[in-house]
Parts: sequence; structure tokens; C-alpha cells
Amino acid sequence: MADVHYHDYLQLDKILDAQHPESAKTEASAHDETLFIIIHQAYELWFKQLHHEADSIVDIMRKPALNDNSPELQTVVHRLNRMAVILRVLIHQIDILETMTPMDFLDFRDMLRPASGFQSWQFKLLEAKLGLKFEYRHGKEYYTAQLRQEHIDLIKQAETSHSFLQLVNDWLERMPISPIPAFPFREGDHAQPLLNADTSSIWGEFDFWKEYKDAYSNSLAEAEKNNMEAFDEVFFQHRETHYTLSAKANRAALFIMLYRGYPLLQLPFQLLNNLLEIDEQLSTWRHRHMNMVHRMIGTRIGTGGSSGKDYLKSAADKHYIFKEIAKLTSFLIERRRLPQLPKEVESKLGFVAPSDSPHGGEQGTALA
Amino acid sequence: MADVHYHDYLQLDKILDAQHPESAKTEASAHDETLFIIIHQAYELWFKQLHHEADSIVDIMRKPALNDNSPELQTVVHRLNRMAVILRVLIHQIDILETMTPMDFLDFRDMLRPASGFQSWQFKLLEAKLGLKFEYRHGKEYYTAQLRQEHIDLIKQAETSHSFLQLVNDWLERMPISPIPAFPFREGDHAQPLLNADTSSIWGEFDFWKEYKDAYSNSLAEAEKNNMEAFDEVFFQHRETHYTLSAKANRAALFIMLYRGYPLLQLPFQLLNNLLEIDEQLSTWRHRHMNMVHRMIGTRIGTGGSSGKDYLKSAADKHYIFKEIAKLTSFLIERRRLPQLPKEVESKLGFVAPSDSPHGGEQGTALA
Amino acid sequence: MADVHYHDYLQLDKILDAQHPESAKTEASAHDETLFIIIHQAYELWFKQLHHEADSIVDIMRKPALNDNSPELQTVVHRLNRMAVILRVLIHQIDILETMTPMDFLDFRDMLRPASGFQSWQFKLLEAKLGLKFEYRHGKEYYTAQLRQEHIDLIKQAETSHSFLQLVNDWLERMPISPIPAFPFREGDHAQPLLNADTSSIWGEFDFWKEYKDAYSNSLAEAEKNNMEAFDEVFFQHRETHYTLSAKANRAALFIMLYRGYPLLQLPFQLLNNLLEIDEQLSTWRHRHMNMVHRMIGTRIGTGGSSGKDYLKSAADKHYIFKEIAKLTSFLIERRRLPQLPKEVESKLGFVAPSDSPHGGEQGTALA
Amino acid sequence: MADVHYHDYLQLDKILDAQHPESAKTEASAHDETLFIIIHQAYELWFKQLHHEADSIVDIMRKPALNDNSPELQTVVHRLNRMAVILRVLIHQIDILETMTPMDFLDFRDMLRPASGFQSWQFKLLEAKLGLKFEYRHGKEYYTAQLRQEHIDLIKQAETSHSFLQLVNDWLERMPISPIPAFPFREGDHAQPLLNADTSSIWGEFDFWKEYKDAYSNSLAEAEKNNMEAFDEVFFQHRETHYTLSAKANRAALFIMLYRGYPLLQLPFQLLNNLLEIDEQLSTWRHRHMNMVHRMIGTRIGTGGSSGKDYLKSAADKHYIFKEIAKLTSFLIERRRLPQLPKEVESKLGFVAPSDSPHGGEQGTALA
Repeated sequence: MADVHYHDYLQLDKILDAQHPESAKTEASAHDETLFIIIHQAYELWFKQLHHEADSIVDIMRKPALNDNSPELQTVVHRLNRMAVILRVLIHQIDILETMTPMDFLDFRDMLRPASGFQSWQFKLLEAKLGLKFEYRHGKEYYTAQLRQEHIDLIKQAETSHSFLQLVNDWLERMPISPIPAFPFREGDHAQPLLNADTSSIWGEFDFWKEYKDAYSNSLAEAEKNNMEAFDEVFFQHRETHYTLSAKANRAALFIMLYRGYPLLQLPFQLLNNLLEIDEQLSTWRHRHMNMVHRMIGTRIGTGGSSGKDYLKSAADKHYIFKEIAKLTSFLIERRRLPQLPKEVESKLGFVAPSDSPHGGEQGTALA
Repeated sequence: MADVHYHDYLQLDKILDAQHPESAKTEASAHDETLFIIIHQAYELWFKQLHHEADSIVDIMRKPALNDNSPELQTVVHRLNRMAVILRVLIHQIDILETMTPMDFLDFRDMLRPASGFQSWQFKLLEAKLGLKFEYRHGKEYYTAQLRQEHIDLIKQAETSHSFLQLVNDWLERMPISPIPAFPFREGDHAQPLLNADTSSIWGEFDFWKEYKDAYSNSLAEAEKNNMEAFDEVFFQHRETHYTLSAKANRAALFIMLYRGYPLLQLPFQLLNNLLEIDEQLSTWRHRHMNMVHRMIGTRIGTGGSSGKDYLKSAADKHYIFKEIAKLTSFLIERRRLPQLPKEVESKLGFVAPSDSPHGGEQGTALA
Repeated sequence: MADVHYHDYLQLDKILDAQHPESAKTEASAHDETLFIIIHQAYELWFKQLHHEADSIVDIMRKPALNDNSPELQTVVHRLNRMAVILRVLIHQIDILETMTPMDFLDFRDMLRPASGFQSWQFKLLEAKLGLKFEYRHGKEYYTAQLRQEHIDLIKQAETSHSFLQLVNDWLERMPISPIPAFPFREGDHAQPLLNADTSSIWGEFDFWKEYKDAYSNSLAEAEKNNMEAFDEVFFQHRETHYTLSAKANRAALFIMLYRGYPLLQLPFQLLNNLLEIDEQLSTWRHRHMNMVHRMIGTRIGTGGSSGKDYLKSAADKHYIFKEIAKLTSFLIERRRLPQLPKEVESKLGFVAPSDSPHGGEQGTALA
Repeated sequence: MADVHYHDYLQLDKILDAQHPESAKTEASAHDETLFIIIHQAYELWFKQLHHEADSIVDIMRKPALNDNSPELQTVVHRLNRMAVILRVLIHQIDILETMTPMDFLDFRDMLRPASGFQSWQFKLLEAKLGLKFEYRHGKEYYTAQLRQEHIDLIKQAETSHSFLQLVNDWLERMPISPIPAFPFREGDHAQPLLNADTSSIWGEFDFWKEYKDAYSNSLAEAEKNNMEAFDEVFFQHRETHYTLSAKANRAALFIMLYRGYPLLQLPFQLLNNLLEIDEQLSTWRHRHMNMVHRMIGTRIGTGGSSGKDYLKSAADKHYIFKEIAKLTSFLIERRRLPQLPKEVESKLGFVAPSDSPHGGEQGTALA
């Protein structure tokens, strides 16, 4: 194998020769334009990395069935966590841009028209891949107005493809851990045969959802009683939109949150938790970006022609991708009031029986 | 002097014996309640420190005139910066609370009613001291609903006192650097005699605000032309509310931003910049707090009886204390188009003339 | 249940009345002494929380056998992670103290003698609980010189008790996943019967350690060949110190790192990784603390009488608690060269066979 | 002016096509190699930005005399602060790399030989520009062993040029605020005529350094008495090395720290403080980098052929660039014991006299 050298390996000749300030072409070179270029390039590098992680996760999740005995789920969890760690740094990075005062920005701002930070196709594509559908976009067509056609096409394709959120939905729906509810309901488009000999026999006579619904109802304060309607809606009504979770998937997600202590549910719980973490980081990123833009250009029209803060604010308020999972928190109950699962179900949620366990221990009965 | 010992000096006997979980009084001790108590105590300690800084700043700003040849302004800038550094840590601290999952919180949540994180009188008092007036509060009376009377009194007193924002307004108004505008206007309640022999003689025939208004007008894109109305409103109309800056103060603040390069304006610029930094940190704190509450309790009623996220969201959107200063960014123009100040004015903005300067150098003419 | 009120619940009357600056007793009140007090109190609050987590972890680990089918291991991993998150905030908190300039500190520094930040018994006790034994302490007796006897006793007791590190050692030693090595070796004090019908029958004729040693040897560059000695030392020699891992435990830890992809090893891997994370955060804390002290008092004698930076530097270099686990990294090999485990072993490392798996999927064969 | 488009402006075609993993050329593509490439590219982008700031600062400092009435010093302070902010993000960025486990790194590590993170010529060049001379380097020749000749030349050139540290030394030496010491001393190579009619007449009969030396001596604890030798050495002995501050510069720096409250010294104080901040951030960066490498490859030989952690540790301990400034802290005394400056000196350290001050206020006498 040929020797590898740091400078060549990283293609630094290209990377370090890609900063050509517009103001340098005039007689009024603006010192801070280099910062403006470099920070956006750093963002785009990290966006590429986020895509690298998201693509690999989607590849795994797209399989007809995740193999619980392989490292697949572990890999998904690990890479989602990495995405959250990257997003934290991207948020922190705004501190650097904020060392550029509005007067310093004005030195070159007009030379950039109509370019603008809104035009990162990688960021919009990432949102689309994760699950932000066109219908949910603030500003609709606007957000792609100034992109190259090839990048618009990529985004449109992602929007019409099965997103990561939908793959999560599918994965949740496949879990036979959410048994037959005892009361009538109608599944949506994504419904799959829920009943199979295997699962039903595990649960026996035990009607989990009836038990849980009762327990939840009892946990509500008087003023919260109308939560029961929402409960029925979320867990048992038809939902046909392609950017939300089905009732069936919601049931599985709730079950994971409730019983995360069982070995089989530990990584699924980490996965769901990481989704919330990513959404929160994206939210904070949008929030700080909005504040930064406001501080930098006030209410003037952005270089991209938008009214800046207002657009960003509306987008920030609206673009939560995994908000349905966050919403499930409303339907949890105290651990000590959780229905006790049948022994047979319990045994399916853990490792092989202790007698022949490779890692000793008494029978586990406690929940998370 | 008697020996001082770490443990006694810090009164650790008190500090470390102030954690008494409610759940420990039941048979279902909840591990995470200790975290809940300690993190709130840590917040309150830091709020006390923020008050210590804010009070000392207010004491300095309250003087009839800040002495530019004393370290007073430097002290104000330094302590405002410290406040921002503290706020950054308080934001970071939310990461710790987020390691408490919703299920872990549920273990003791109901035992806390009607206590809630909304009830930090120190935080509300801090907002009031800085300048958040009752009229601007989201939820009005609600926000003090569950406080002790003595703490409500403190807040009410702060709300009716001259706030830090108002002291900033006074300080800005006292600056003779904002000369007589050439067009008619009416000053507000806080107006003071602007004309004094000294100032007018410095500016001579030079009509700064006429020059600047022209330059600003020329800098606007077609779609921004209606900014001129806002310009007149912000810099020359009467404003009588006590939670906003007067036209006169706005002029001084803008002048500082524009000509921050002159020695006399360097610390004033840092002061204004620190106000924006503090507002931004407060804003991010509220935003992350809101997201955290949402993740923790969903749409359920908070332990304090509020609908949680919605209240926090509205408060976060509304409670920018120094928003008027942030808004001034809209009225900046490019440095190279700035009106050149008369020599006599320039000389008043710098150190003693170079000939007898203690720290050599040629005559400075460049602006920031 | 009686109503709970925020202010009382948090015992804020005590917490907020525990700041009594020494300088306030003189005519020269020093503004920054309040900061000095409050930041140390905040540290002590968080140290108490770290103890709360560490104690709960030790309680779980002290059981004769961790139950892999219970949430015990998950709880340990979760709380270790929380400890790391807290430590990150404690490091960040140093930023606040650094806003106190040396001149500001001098205003009250002499009044504190002989108190000093070195005297946090909670921090020293935490180190001892985690596994820092007296023999490893830099400065030996010195580090407790100025503590109250009752706190010295606590530390001494922790140092002579079975530490968390030793519990980790025990837990690793209990794992039958590290089979009989093919070459002669002598186990140390902690050795337990390794051979039992169960384990040996699983591994059959497969001599894992012989295979692995060959693979490792082949992976070494010429200049690294003497690593083989270290390999034998670490994994097969007797070690009798009570602050290091036994050869047997090292084997288990390495096995976990290598085969972390199998479900049964996923949480054990997270546990080991969290130990390294905690050690790294502690290390960064000590490093930044040292730099901060240096910046604050230079080479002068600390208020606690120590030479400040030098002591801190030596302690920082020496006090890695889990350094033996970090060292194992040297003995990893590439994933694609890992010995393939026998089917029977593999089956013990995963969930129940797919035919009756509660969460479908094909047979897993891939490694992490 | 032609339209500017985001994608072209940022040259994203180049930036986003510069990731070509070595492992992708084999049959064993390693997922994490992309992260390894991108994080190093992000580091190099930021190193370029650090050079952009450092170069601009050096350009200003290189002038024969900084103009205190221009924004020059403000610009230097502002950009040094930006460098510190960037360094904080670079430290945080290590978190991302730490999501790559040792096993993940092993998947492609051997393919990179002999490339290594040690080979960032931009980082070494930055150290050299700031003031790290060859004589101070740990490992001497070693650190350039694998660089391209053109990059070695750049570093060598920087090492033999007048560094930023030396420019700071010159700037400090030029300040006439450090008057004639009353006791004999010999200035070093950089000495300039200190006596000029102007300065001596300002100070009159007042022998500042005699007064200060007495006050310092009185402030020392018994065990610190030998600090007086260091005092003489630092402030009055000849020093001929080109990587240290002269006695004369040390005197000016100390004076600035002591009397930072006077307007003329406020920005110089911020400048010195920022140097310490940068050194501390660089130190933390090296420390965390060392820990990260240790965690990743243990004691194995790095891809660059070095023994990894040991080299990094020694470099981290040794490479403080502004350590002489940090050391001055040892020679500060309490504010209330500071010699009172003569009125004539005071008047030179402030703005024009209050009677004709553009910004009112009584005569300032208090110190910082």
C-alpha cells in the first residue's frame, strides 16, 4: 500500500484554497468575510457527515426486519447519538459567528446578494430525509427558491421517499409487543396483520391495553380528564398522513418507554430517546440561528431576500420532526402502577433462562 | 484574624443538609428526586449570584453621572459579561436534568404539587430588576400566583422602581454625543435639556442626524424603503412607555454602535453588546427550558398547575428585555459611508492629543 | 398529602442565607468574595449529587450477581452517564470563576487562610469511593491535612472498603465468558474457580485465548513486538494490588470490547465506556482547575498552604482511576481478524432463538 | 455586480468532494473513516481562520507605534477574543471524535500510515507565529519530520521571524508608563532609550518601582520571602532569549495589571488577559487531544510513528506560549496597598479633563 500523507489524504490543497471573498475583488477588502466563508464551509462539512450517518442508519432500518441478535440496533443508536453530538457542536459554533458584529457584517453583506445562509440544500435535504415533509414546511415553495435544480431534485426525491421517520414507524409497527387491544379500532394505511398465532399465544387472556387504559385514566387529575380522548385518538384511531406515526406504532413506542427495563427494550428505548435528543438539538440550533440573524441584521431583508427572523422563527416553531414521539410522554403513568406482564411475555423480553445463562443471575422480575 | 475553614466558611453543614425528598417520607423513595432538588438549589444559588452582580451594576449606574475616568464603566461591562458567562452555564446545566427520563420523574412528580419550577421568585425578580415590566409579562398576575407574599412584594417593588433598562436609558440620554437633530421632534418624559453651550459649540454647523438620515436612506433596497418611517419613529418620536428607550437614548446607542472605534465609545459599545448577549442567553435558557419541560411532561398539567410548554413558549417569545437595542441593528449603515465627524468632536472622543500622550502614536483618524 | 411549596421544598431559606463573606466583616468588602463562596457551594451541591449516584451504583454492583434480565445494569450505565454529564458542567463552571481576575481575588484572598479549595472532603471521598487508594495519592497524608476528623474518617473508611473499581473487577471476574487459556498462568488473590461444567462445555475444544494471542501477535508492527510481554502480563500474570484489575477481569473486559455487538455485551460495553468517560472528565477537571489556580495565584502559596499548581499538576497526572481499562485499548485487533466464536457461545450471547423471538429477525451472525 | 450563489460562493463542489476514504478503495469500507477525514478538515478550516486572525493582528502590532486614539488596539483585542472563542469550539469538537470507538478506528487505522494528526503544519505554524520558538519545542526536529518541505519552510521562517509574542514585548517596552527604577539594572537586547524628557517630567520625584517593591515585600508570607529574588530577576535582570519578555516589558505588563482601571490601560489589560485565555485554551486542547489519543490507541505506536500519548503529554506540559505573562500574577499585591500615582501621571491615563469632557463626570481618582 502506498504511503498516505496527511496533507494529501485530507485534500488540503482543495480545502484551504476554497476561500475567495467577494470583497477581496473590490478595493474594500472586509476582514470578516473570511470568517463568514469558513464557518459556512465548516457547517457544510458537518452537514455532509450528518448525511453520512443518516444514510447509513436508513440503510439499516430499511431492512425487512432488524435483527435483534446482531449489532444493527446498537449501530443505529450509536450513530444517532453521534448526530446529536455533532449538532451540539454546530450550536456552539454559532458563538464564533457572533463575534462578528453587525457593523463588521455590513462591510461585505451587500456583495453577497442574493446568497444567504438559507440556501444550504444539505440542511434542507437532511430535514427531508429525517421526515420533514413538504406539507409541514413553513413557507412551502419558498424554501427551495434559490437552490440549483439538481439540489431541489434531491430534496423533492427525499420528500417523496420513505423517510427515516416512516422507517421508525414501520419498525415500531413490526413489533409484536403491542398486542390486540380489547376495544374496537380501525388501523390506518400502514396496518399489517397484527394477529399471529405466536403473539396471541404469548399474551393469552391478558388484555394489556384495557389494563393500561384504566390505569392511565386513574392517574389523571380532574382537569386532565379530557386526555382520554387524546389517548384514544393517539393509540387507536386511524391516521392516514405519511408524516405521523400510526396508532399501532404509537402503542409500540409507548410500550418501549414503559417497559424499557427489559433487555429486549433497552436499545429500542435508547433509539427513541436519541430521536428526541436530535429534535431538541435541531430546535435549539434553529432558535439560536434566529436570534443570531436578528442580532446581525435586525429586521432588514436578509441577503437571501427573506425577512430573516420571522421566517426562521416560524420554521423553528413548526419543524419538530419527532414531535409525535415527544407527545407520548403525556400518556405515561407511574412505574409502580404499571400492569404486571404475564410471565411468558416477560421471558420473551429477556435473555435465555438463568439456568443456562452465560452470565449468571437470578430470575429478573423487576421492571425498569 | 481567626482561622477560616473551608467547610465552615461555606456553611456546608447547612448546604448539604438541605435535601429532603418528599418521596423519602413514603415507602417509595425515588432515586431521582435528589437530583431534582439539587439542580434547583444550584439554580437558585446562581440566581443569587446574578442578583449580586445586577445589584452592584445598578448601584453604579444609578449615580448622577458615570465617571469616564474611573473604572466604573469597566466594572459594569465586566460584571455584565460575568452574568452572561453564568447564564451559559445555567443553560448547559439543563443537560443534567435531561438525564432524568419522564418515567423517572413520574416516580415523585405527584408528591410535589403544587410546587413547580415556575415558582422561582429570584428569577422573576431578576427579570423585573433588569427591566421586564408587569405590562410586558405573559400571563400577568399568573406568574406570581404561588409565591410567598414577601417575594411578590419584592417583585412588585422592582417592577415599580427604576429598572436597569431605565438606568441604561438615562445614561444614554445624558451623553452629549447625540447632537440636536435638524428636524423638529418632541422628546419624551425623560427628556433633559439637550442644548448646552459646550455641546453645541463642539458640533458647530455640522448636522449629524441630517447627514446620517440621508446616508441610511440611500443604503436601503427598494423593498426596504418603508424603513424610513421606522427610522423617524425610533429616533425622533415621543415614546412614553417606561419599558422602552427614548428617542434620545436610541440616538446615543446608535451613535455608539456606529463610532465604537473611538476610545471614549469602546466600553459603552461593550456594554450595549453585553446587554444583547444577556438577552440572548436568557432567551436560549427559556427555549431550552420549554423543550425540556415538554420532553418531561408532554402536554400534561405541570406540578404548578400550568399548561407547561405553552406558557413557557409565550413567555420565551415575549420576554426580550433589551429588544429595542437589538432592533437598532436595522438602522446601521456601512462603515465606509459613515459621516466623517468634525475634528473637534473627534478630539473629544479620544485620549489627550498625541503630542503629550503618555502612550505615543500618530493622530488617529480611522474609525472602528 | 400537604401542599408542597417550591421555596420550602428547596429549603431556600437555608440555601440563600449561607453566604457570609469574611471581607464583609471588615471595612473593605470585596465584591467577588460572594462569587467565590457561591461557586464552591454549587460545586459541593453537585459533589453531593455525584455521591448520590455513586452510592446507588455501588449498592447495585455489590450484589453477588447482577441480574442480566433486570434493569440493574441499565441503571448502572444510566447513572454513570449522568455522572459524566454532571462533570462536564462542573468543568464548564470554571469559566465563571475565571471571570474573577487575580486582582479581584487578592481583595479577600488573605482573609481566607488557611481555607482553600483543596479542602473539599466530598471530592476526595468521591475519588476514594470510585477506587483511588491511598497508595496512589499524590502527596499522601497531605491531602487530608486540613479536614475535620469526621471527614478524614469517611475517606479512610472508603479507602479501606471495597471500592467501585473493585466491584467492577469482581463483576468482570464473574463473567464466564473468559474461558480457560491454553497456556499456563497463575491467578491472583481474587481468582475464583474458573472451570465449571457449564462454561467449559459451551466453549468445547475452542481455545479462544490461544487464537486471540496469535491474532494479536500478527497485528503488531515490528517496533511493537515487545507488546507481547505486556499482553502476557496484563492477561495472565498474577496481580495482587487492590487498586488494579486482575488478569481474569482484564480478559473479560477485553472480550466485552471485542465482541460488544452481541446483545448480552452491549450494556457491559457501555458501562466500560462510561468509566473511561468519567476518568477523562475528572482529568480535564483537574487540568483546568490547575490552569485556573495558576492564572489566579501564580506560583504563590495557596490559601491552603500548598504550592498550588505543582500539587495539582502531579495529582492530575497521577489520579486516573480507571487507567487499566484505558490501557486495554493497546490490545485490540481489527474486527475482521477476530476469532469467530463457536455457535454455542454465540447463542448464549443473544436473545432467544428467532423462531420464538418476540421481535422477529433472522439469525444474527455478524459481530459488532 | 454579478449574482452570488451560496453553493458557488462557498465552493461547495470542492469542499464536499474532498472526502475519499482509503478504506473505500479496499473491499472493507470503514464507515467511520469519513468522520475521521471530515473532522480533520474542519480543524484545518478553523486553523486557517486562526491564521487569518493572527496575521491581521501581527500586521497591526508590527507598526512602529499603536495609535491609542484609533481602533487598532480594540481590533487586536476583539480578534484575540475571537481566537479564544474558536479554540473553545475546537476543544468541544473532540467530543465528536470520541464517538469513534477504538474498534471503529482500527477498521481503517493501518491504511493511513504514515499519516497522522501530528502532521498539521497549520497548527505548528500557528504556534510558531504566536511565539513558540524551536528551542522550546518538545521533540525538536521530530515535530516537522513528516511535513512537506514547503510547509517546513513556512514554519522555520515563522520561527526565525519576529513573533507575535515579541511584538507584544516591543509594544510593552514602548510604553513610557514604566518609569526609571531606582536601582541599577541592565536592559536586554530589545532595550530602547527609556529616558525621555517627557516621561521623566511626568513622574517627577516619584520612584514607583521602589515604592512597589517595598509594598510587595511587605505582602509576602514568611515562606514566600524568597519571591523577592524572583522579583528582581523578572523585573530588573537582563534576559537575552528571544522567546521571553524583557524586564522592561514585564514592568509594563505588571503596571497594566495593577492599574487596569485607568481608561488608557483598559484595552491593554483586555489584551493581556486574552493572551492568557488563548494559552489556556491551547493547553486544554492539547490535554484533551492527549487523552483522546490515549483512549483511542492506548500505548500503541501512532499512525505517524510516534508513541502518541507521551509525546503529546510532554508537548502539552511545555508549550505554554505566554507563560511569562501568567507568571506575573505572583507579583501582584492588594489593590488597597497600591502606590497612589502622582496626579500628573493619572491625568495622562484618562480622557480629557472633566471640565471640557464630552461625557460628563467628576474627576476620577479611584483605581480599578
